[in-house]
Amino acid sequence: MTNKAEEFFNVDDPESGIHRELAPGLNAQVFVGDNSMLSLVRFVPGGKGEIHSHSEEQWGLLLEGSGTRIQNGVEHQVIAGDFWRTPGGITHGFIAGPQGAKVMDIFSPAREAYREQGEGFANK
Amino acid sequence: MTNKAEEFFNVDDPESGIHRELAPGLNAQVFVGDNSMLSLVRFVPGGKGEIHSHSEEQWGLLLEGSGTRIQNGVEHQVIAGDFWRTPGGITHGFIAGPQGAKVMDIFSPAREAYREQGEGFANK
Repeated sequence: MTNKAEEFFNVDDPESGIHRELAPGLNAQVFVGDNSMLSLVRFVPGGKGEIHSHSEEQWGLLLEGSGTRIQNGVEHQVIAGDFWRTPGGITHGFIAGPQGAKVMDIFSPAREAYREQGEGFANK
Repeated sequence: MTNKAEEFFNVDDPESGIHRELAPGLNAQVFVGDNSMLSLVRFVPGGKGEIHSHSEEQWGLLLEGSGTRIQNGVEHQVIAGDFWRTPGGITHGFIAGPQGAKVMDIFSPAREAYREQGEGFANK
């Protein structure tokens, strides 16, 4: 753990950020900025993030594992190091591969519903 | 290389994005969104990103290597997996460690000067 100062974090620190259960067994740590927000999501093997959409632009970066990114109805097989952009309003979801997955999501603007502790994807 | 579809990229693909030389030997690949922008920066061992600032909020995620992040005049030693937020207007720079560094920077809003090919940090 190298959380040594305000505004400095590490992807392997399970304590930092605002904790949010997106779905049973699907947990996120949310880091709030002024114009953007990071959400570090850990998927168990085969874990699913339901198809949803929101107005905020989103980027995702697969830090560990593999999976299937479903975006606008199209399935994309992704591996660690892959990253992608999801324009606002586009439906998307994720299904983790056999080793699970760790994804860094980036929202811009910040998702208002994620600024406080809560549950679920806050679809709209 | 797994650049399999529009809006899908990989951090190990040196071809994708808009190429920008931030300083001699310091190269970035820029990926443009609507409200935000990613910039993948590769530092050679000991490579430096000069101290500068801009109005856009910035996050950085150290994907590989190590270095010193200088932020608001304070030096922070960082390792792979560390990430940090730099509010708009805060001075910042980076000095890579002995193995170099690969950093994913995130700007929100997108830095207008980086939407097109060019050189330099576009300080303002």
